[in-house]
Amino acid sequence: MTVMSVSSAQIGTCLAARGLRLPPPWKIPSTPIPASLIRVVGTRVFVSGHVPTDENGVVTGPYGKVGAEVDLPAARHGALRTILSIVASVENTVGDLRRVKSWCMLRCMVNSAADFTDFPAVFSESSRLLLDVFGDDIGAHARVAIGVAGLPWNLPVEIEAELELS
Amino acid sequence: MTVMSVSSAQIGTCLAARGLRLPPPWKIPSTPIPASLIRVVGTRVFVSGHVPTDENGVVTGPYGKVGAEVDLPAARHGALRTILSIVASVENTVGDLRRVKSWCMLRCMVNSAADFTDFPAVFSESSRLLLDVFGDDIGAHARVAIGVAGLPWNLPVEIEAELELS
Amino acid sequence: MTVMSVSSAQIGTCLAARGLRLPPPWKIPSTPIPASLIRVVGTRVFVSGHVPTDENGVVTGPYGKVGAEVDLPAARHGALRTILSIVASVENTVGDLRRVKSWCMLRCMVNSAADFTDFPAVFSESSRLLLDVFGDDIGAHARVAIGVAGLPWNLPVEIEAELELS
Repeated sequence: MTVMSVSSAQIGTCLAARGLRLPPPWKIPSTPIPASLIRVVGTRVFVSGHVPTDENGVVTGPYGKVGAEVDLPAARHGALRTILSIVASVENTVGDLRRVKSWCMLRCMVNSAADFTDFPAVFSESSRLLLDVFGDDIGAHARVAIGVAGLPWNLPVEIEAELELS
Repeated sequence: MTVMSVSSAQIGTCLAARGLRLPPPWKIPSTPIPASLIRVVGTRVFVSGHVPTDENGVVTGPYGKVGAEVDLPAARHGALRTILSIVASVENTVGDLRRVKSWCMLRCMVNSAADFTDFPAVFSESSRLLLDVFGDDIGAHARVAIGVAGLPWNLPVEIEAELELS
Repeated sequence: MTVMSVSSAQIGTCLAARGLRLPPPWKIPSTPIPASLIRVVGTRVFVSGHVPTDENGVVTGPYGKVGAEVDLPAARHGALRTILSIVASVENTVGDLRRVKSWCMLRCMVNSAADFTDFPAVFSESSRLLLDVFGDDIGAHARVAIGVAGLPWNLPVEIEAELELS
């Protein structure tokens, strides 16, 4: 397996070709949370639960449960905004993204209405984006996608992650 | 602590003595999911959320919430089928199971009815199987067992895992 | 970043200044669970889902869903008791706490009523305690705080964790 590094500039170009760009790092909205958005331990990167942010790094709706107040396309868009926010946080902490050797694991959570079950579909575009912009060797990841009983600020999706640096 | 390796052949013998055998690797049912069933990073193995599969590697019911449509014995059986599916995926990716040095962590999720709380009981047989067939040194694992609001395809249980290779 | 080690005696002093002390290790209440409370693999420490215990190491209520039977102050107290139980389990397994190099990640779960969403607030005091008694370099951690559909014994909170030893 050939592992190539992908620079922040290359990521930016790949995203721009898709009409996307990294937001600034997440601006935590209210009371400060005594936990780290990103915790780096050696070459391991633990990513706190992230939620959708807009292009200014501010948490953005829609709010509510997927399958009730929030429909599948809106949930998918929220998941994509969440992945962009995670990539922005990682870049902000580790510097250039070429240090990322592997996306190891994504844990994807849906604030789920009682009868919604298509959790994988919410995150397929997000997973695909990692593969497309980081390449298969770096971007590949294991994943879990489940429905939970509630998420902070009643947001529809949340993703936590673990990465490995070179 | 003496860590012995346990070969795939030995695992097969242990399972056969219990009337069990590894299924073929999980056949993802519908649209392809752009995530890896197993992600190996160095000596670390990240196992995506797995669900019960039958002896052909096909996702199998019963479907529904534990404590409502699915009773405890059926949920326990589903959890056991899930662990077998995980072991099969690990073998399929890393080759012989003697490369497994440690089962580190299992995260066990129950698609839970409102009043069901006996989550540990659903997975006790699954945890015991790992200890029995891999031995205490390799098979020991930390664990979390919780109720979630929903699982893909409305399955009753799902397990994700992390392992360490030698 | 200067990483200092913090001994068990120092932790005890810090806790005592807050009117707290480590409980004895968790006494699992009923049927034995075939999983390890703490799984050490090399320098990595996987902490099973822990719940609130009292000063004798016995699981303690209140029981029920946060936002319904259990209010926010009681949930916060349960989360604090849970962190103390985790620290006690780690000490019991690894010996002196000066071996802890980093708290990497906390996964915090709330047994949530339908309309409760302030999950981060439940665990802010717990996260703060780790920073205060271990110091920022060791105590810093990524975190996820979500609502789940159910927890063992209908307890209001549960926390799992990963740590790194030096």
